[in-house]
Amino acid sequence: MEIVVLRLGHRIDRDKRTTTHVGLCARALGAQGMLLVGSDDSVVAAIRDVVERWGGDFWIKNRVNWKQEIFKWKEKGGKVLHLTMYGANLPSVIDTIDADKLMVAVGAEKVPPELYTLADYNVAITHQPHSEIAALSIFLDRLQEGRELSTDFEGKTRINGDVQRKGSKRDEKVS
Amino acid sequence: MEIVVLRLGHRIDRDKRTTTHVGLCARALGAQGMLLVGSDDSVVAAIRDVVERWGGDFWIKNRVNWKQEIFKWKEKGGKVLHLTMYGANLPSVIDTIDADKLMVAVGAEKVPPELYTLADYNVAITHQPHSEIAALSIFLDRLQEGRELSTDFEGKTRINGDVQRKGSKRDEKVS
Repeated sequence: MEIVVLRLGHRIDRDKRTTTHVGLCARALGAQGMLLVGSDDSVVAAIRDVVERWGGDFWIKNRVNWKQEIFKWKEKGGKVLHLTMYGANLPSVIDTIDADKLMVAVGAEKVPPELYTLADYNVAITHQPHSEIAALSIFLDRLQEGRELSTDFEGKTRINGDVQRKGSKRDEKVS
Repeated sequence: MEIVVLRLGHRIDRDKRTTTHVGLCARALGAQGMLLVGSDDSVVAAIRDVVERWGGDFWIKNRVNWKQEIFKWKEKGGKVLHLTMYGANLPSVIDTIDADKLMVAVGAEKVPPELYTLADYNVAITHQPHSEIAALSIFLDRLQEGRELSTDFEGKTRINGDVQRKGSKRDEKVS
C-alpha cells in the first residue's frame, strides 16, 4: 500500500519539533513521503538529513496547498484518512479501510472544517486529547499489522547491523 | 497492570510540547501517572488541566530523582522497561514482558547510560530514529492489546457522549 502523510496546521517555531517527529514517524513507520502545509525549511532539512544518513527514499514536499493535494490524490484513485479525536474510534473502523493509496492527514491544533467532509475516513485514536504523533504512529502500526517494524532501510547508519535479524534477544540488549 | 511513565531528559522550552505530548499519551493510553525528571511547572499544569476537564485520575510528579524512583519501584516488586532504539525490537520481546507493575522510561535525546543496565527490558520500536511519543504510544497499545483505546474517563468534557458506544459508524462521522 502506498501511504503519504499530509501535515496541516504547522506553525513555525511552536510546531518545529512536533512536525519533525511526525515526519520521522511517517518515514520509520512505513509511509513513502510527507506533504507539509505551510513552510519550514528547517523541518525539511532535519528529515532529509535523517534519510541521507539512515536510508530509504522517504520524500518531503514543503509549502503545499492541502486541498489541491487531496484533489490530485483522489483523481489518481487515492483515499484520504483524517486522524481526529472527533472521528470513529479505531477499533470500530480499522477493518473497513480499503485503499491501495492512502493519504493520512494529521493536524496540529485546528484543521479546516472542510477536511472532515473531504476525507473518506475520519478516525480517532481514542476520543481523548493526546498527540498527533501518537495517533499517526498507532494508526500506521495497526494498518500494517506491525510489518513496518521490521523494515530494513539499508542506510549508512544502522544500529548493530540491524540487530533484530540476528535472532538472539540477548545480543540486542545494550549493557 | 499498573503502568507509570518515567520521563527523562526534559529540557525546559525545547521539550515543553513533546513532554506534554508524552504525558497526554501516557494518560490517554492507560498509564496511571508520570514521573518527570527535571522541572517544568507549565507542563505539569497543562496535563493537570486535561485531567480536570477530561476525567480520570492520572497523576504527575515533578522534579523526581530518576534513580531513586527506579529503586523504590523495584523494591515494591515493579519492573522497568526502557524504550530505546538500541533495545531489542518490539516484535521479538513483546511476549516476554511479564510484570504486574511496569515503569516505562522514555528519554528526550540522551539518557544516563546506567539506565540501560537498571532497566529490566530495553525495547526498540524499530531501530530507526523517530519519536519517544510514538515509541511510548505504540508500546502501550501493543502491551494492552488495544484495550486502552476504549477506556471511559468519565470526564466533564467528552466527545459526543462517547460516540463509539452508539455502535453506528455513520453517527461518528463529523460532517
